[in-house]
Amino acid sequence: MKVLVIGATGLLGTAAATALDARHEVIQASRSGDVQVDLADAESISAMFESVGKVDAVVACTGVVPFKPLAELTAGDFEAGVADKVLGQVNLVLLGTPYVNDGGSFTLTTGVLAREPINTGVAASLANGALESFVMAAAAELPRGIRINAVSPSVLEDATGYHDFFPGFAKISSEDVGRAYVKSVDGIQNGRVFPLG
Amino acid sequence: MKVLVIGATGLLGTAAATALDARHEVIQASRSGDVQVDLADAESISAMFESVGKVDAVVACTGVVPFKPLAELTAGDFEAGVADKVLGQVNLVLLGTPYVNDGGSFTLTTGVLAREPINTGVAASLANGALESFVMAAAAELPRGIRINAVSPSVLEDATGYHDFFPGFAKISSEDVGRAYVKSVDGIQNGRVFPLG
Ligand SMILES: NC(=O)c1ccc[n+]([C@@H]2O[C@H](COP(=O)([O-])OP(=O)(O)OC[C@H]3O[C@@H](n4cnc5c(N)ncnc54)[C@H](OP(=O)(O)O)[C@@H]3O)[C@@H](O)[C@H]2O)c1
Ligand SMILES: NC(=O)c1ccc[n+]([C@@H]2O[C@H](COP(=O)([O-])OP(=O)(O)OC[C@H]3O[C@@H](n4cnc5c(N)ncnc54)[C@H](OP(=O)(O)O)[C@@H]3O)[C@@H](O)[C@H]2O)c1
Repeated sequence: MKVLVIGATGLLGTAAATALDARHEVIQASRSGDVQVDLADAESISAMFESVGKVDAVVACTGVVPFKPLAELTAGDFEAGVADKVLGQVNLVLLGTPYVNDGGSFTLTTGVLAREPINTGVAASLANGALESFVMAAAAELPRGIRINAVSPSVLEDATGYHDFFPGFAKISSEDVGRAYVKSVDGIQNGRVFPLG
Repeated sequence: MKVLVIGATGLLGTAAATALDARHEVIQASRSGDVQVDLADAESISAMFESVGKVDAVVACTGVVPFKPLAELTAGDFEAGVADKVLGQVNLVLLGTPYVNDGGSFTLTTGVLAREPINTGVAASLANGALESFVMAAAAELPRGIRINAVSPSVLEDATGYHDFFPGFAKISSEDVGRAYVKSVDGIQNGRVFPLG
């Protein structure tokens, strides 16, 4: 299969691309990658698909959300998190669907904060919850047997800079998170969230 | 208790206000109500709280989201749904917290589409999922024992115009949904979603 991984230079994207590379032709994209795309910019998404052409799977491992105590979060912070993490991935699906082959798939990235709180994580929780319900609902309306799932990990073992913010949370290995992307791309699940930790 | 109900002239708001009125002093607000507020406008939210003063509970029964087939939804549609349903209620919490008495509560309104799809409902699912994870996370950071929950009903019996869009879904009575708002306001639950149907 031809698999397009957005955010392939990041922590999760590297884990996804490495795991998928074993059996698939992986095309790596990001704002600064081989194939360039900025998910915040609709024209850039369309230009990427025009240049890459048809693919069998699209995997997104992007999304930045402000982390602040609830008392300091503003409506603008929630809006920024939604714009980057949620609307970026949603627009990838909306604009990318015509370029995905029949029976292909989308795999988005959410995170444990959809279901568990951490201090300063409210805007991230909102963004992750939005994407998880989007995946559940979009699965029922995508055409031509195209599937969609979300990988929703706890903090990664390798993301040591974040560990203090996730006291007692499971630390997920790159191999485990990579396998979740493979399950979504190579499996038959649809409209599912794959929680890790 | 002094309970401020936003959207009190609507279907759910009437059900909430009627049920809460049995034991509480209910203040009704909406864009055209006794007390006027537009949740899309931060200044209007602050002006409402300045005029109403301290309250024990805030209940929001508002939120408009575009309903369209997935193939016709644009990023702008998702943005509009988030702006109205999600950020309106989130901003009510952010700006309202200083006006809620110790041990008081917020109760937001989401809906069954957070957990079940209907045709044309993807933007509503995303908005509801966002609010439900927000409630879970905000509960853990609100100060002074202030609680927050969400009421998440299937379509109401009285919303006959929507019934065809919810084939086989439970039709919820005003009494049942009213009781869910009472449970949130008078109970001790925190960070919870109350699903009906
Ligand atoms: N790290 C964790 O432990 C963890 C756990 C659970 C969930 N998550 C979630 O997983 C996602 C990725 O996290 P990460 O830690 O892997 O991030 P990361 O290491 O910062 O990597 C982000 C990747 O996305 C690319 N990117 C960023 N903005 C982009 C845009 N607008 N358009 C296209 N590409 C963009 C980056 O490359 P360029 O800068 O070159 O564009 C990079 O390849 C986030 O949503 C995060 O919340 C992370
Ligand atoms: N009806 C159902 O069966 C059902 C089921 C599940 C969930 N829901 C959800 O429940 C919420 C309310 O639905 P509903 O059917 O009760 O709606 P509705 O009958 O249209 O009532 C909406 C209420 O909110 C007020 N309002 C609207 N926009 C506002 C704003 N920007 N600022 C302040 N007040 C505003 C309206 O009054 P003004 O126009 O005067 O402002 C009205 O009082 C929606 O989010 C809906 O998705 C509804």
